[in-house]
Amino acid sequence: MIDKLIEKIKKTGAPIVVGLDPMMKFVPEYIKKAAFASKGETLEGAAEAIWLYNKGIIDNICDLIPAVKPQIAMYEQFGIPGLVTFQKTVDYCKEKGLVVIGDIKRGDIGSTSSAYATAHLGKVQVGSSVCTAFNEDFVTVNPYLGTDGVQPFIDVCKEEKKGLFILVKTSNPSSGEFQDRLIDNRPLYEHVGEKVAAWGEQLMGTNGYSYVGAVVGATYPEQGKILRKIMPQSFILVPGYGAQGASGKDLVHFFDDNRLGAIVNSSRGIIAAYQNEKYGSFGAENFADASRQAVVDMIEDINSAFENAGK
Amino acid sequence: MIDKLIEKIKKTGAPIVVGLDPMMKFVPEYIKKAAFASKGETLEGAAEAIWLYNKGIIDNICDLIPAVKPQIAMYEQFGIPGLVTFQKTVDYCKEKGLVVIGDIKRGDIGSTSSAYATAHLGKVQVGSSVCTAFNEDFVTVNPYLGTDGVQPFIDVCKEEKKGLFILVKTSNPSSGEFQDRLIDNRPLYEHVGEKVAAWGEQLMGTNGYSYVGAVVGATYPEQGKILRKIMPQSFILVPGYGAQGASGKDLVHFFDDNRLGAIVNSSRGIIAAYQNEKYGSFGAENFADASRQAVVDMIEDINSAFENAGK
Repeated sequence: MIDKLIEKIKKTGAPIVVGLDPMMKFVPEYIKKAAFASKGETLEGAAEAIWLYNKGIIDNICDLIPAVKPQIAMYEQFGIPGLVTFQKTVDYCKEKGLVVIGDIKRGDIGSTSSAYATAHLGKVQVGSSVCTAFNEDFVTVNPYLGTDGVQPFIDVCKEEKKGLFILVKTSNPSSGEFQDRLIDNRPLYEHVGEKVAAWGEQLMGTNGYSYVGAVVGATYPEQGKILRKIMPQSFILVPGYGAQGASGKDLVHFFDDNRLGAIVNSSRGIIAAYQNEKYGSFGAENFADASRQAVVDMIEDINSAFENAGK
Repeated sequence: MIDKLIEKIKKTGAPIVVGLDPMMKFVPEYIKKAAFASKGETLEGAAEAIWLYNKGIIDNICDLIPAVKPQIAMYEQFGIPGLVTFQKTVDYCKEKGLVVIGDIKRGDIGSTSSAYATAHLGKVQVGSSVCTAFNEDFVTVNPYLGTDGVQPFIDVCKEEKKGLFILVKTSNPSSGEFQDRLIDNRPLYEHVGEKVAAWGEQLMGTNGYSYVGAVVGATYPEQGKILRKIMPQSFILVPGYGAQGASGKDLVHFFDDNRLGAIVNSSRGIIAAYQNEKYGSFGAENFADASRQAVVDMIEDINSAFENAGK
């Protein structure tokens, strides 16, 4: 799957991923109205509104980008109907040829991580049948429980040729509270990064990158430089672009000289572009066109940062 | 909710929680057969089998115990139908008067943690309606992202009078890989424990304990002693009893002199008791009776450990 991701990045010239993290406040009123008219002001109604909104965006940007990253929490808050929309979104994006990174940040003790890996990347045996639950291509994983919490995910990835992004240094303001604390004179995130590099050696793609990647926030460029060196074979998923404050120039050092090795996420900067002053002239009716323009601009921003950096 | 938990512990004389972590291999053949006959060898069939199995156990032990802890991963692996069974299990246990701890180990950046907190503890606005998704009383939370990943859960708990158990020192063999690393000469889990104590001060119950508790594995009794002191007002959820190797005597120091301050989890030791040699004579048909006997024995084991320790 890392090979497919790389191939799609090369084809689109866009090392970006769009975070499908719908909040009700992003969904245009006319879509909510239609959804509530058919399903009521219920969880089903909310799930329908999000589905219509997602579909509009996906249809309008899927040719420009290699991958999407739906954040499951945004669906889980609408209960079972929300999770049905999560599943429909994953399946629809895969139909459109997109690589799907499930942003689930799961992680537990061995047997439980194994169940999560089955749920999102694997297959489950029911009597004599083999079934799939959710079916993403990659998922994000929390490393706090150590190797035996991560290994079951790796085992399923080996079987299914799927991949992981392990949280190393997250993009949020308080990520340093534990992640930056010094252990043997080096921050915790460097130790986690070393483990990611070691875990990744078990499962290499054909392009020099592993199926086991890392999450490092765009908001911490200096740390990103160090982590790029510690994990030379790990693809880095970089959240924090746009709404969280980082821009193209903060990102170049996450990449190798072939403009590979990282994929930059933007969520509300793309999906809610029409609410941004810059794209306000599109209007709510044309929210998906605003998203398309925001994708074009993001690709250009990153590529001109590459030019300026001589990459 | 911490007050309700304490009241229920006093009433039952049982500081224990039963982990409803069903695996297909635990479910008796005759239940699987009935479920597959009505729903097929499908995710729906698996979800039905788990529901029938859970219901049998809950009906047979609910008068003995204060709380249950369904592990969502075990349901999530069966996709949407599995999560429907998770929700039915949560609702049914609440009808039976049990406190429900959703073992979800979620944790993310602020706005995403907020969505998870809404999903599992709160309410969500849909148009002019207020809806609930899942509706546990407590959830477990992963602290790797720091305060701004935890605070949204605390905010929802304040509103809803619900509670949390934050992962501090987990029960699994590799938990030490990061959690035990020394920072300023003290292991990471102690620093996390200090934060838990500080977070908990925002939200105290009337019994001297906070709505913000901690998870500390029974498999690490020495660390438990230290953490008990670092977090004097935090209830400790203690996994690792039974199948993971700990017994009553390893647990007494998690408790205060009133036999409060902790709640000990057993999962497969209770729910799959009939598969254990000790309870083998019950037979698969009487799996729920075996579970009941295992609960009785666990309560006795813990209470005699209290006696021996003079508590």
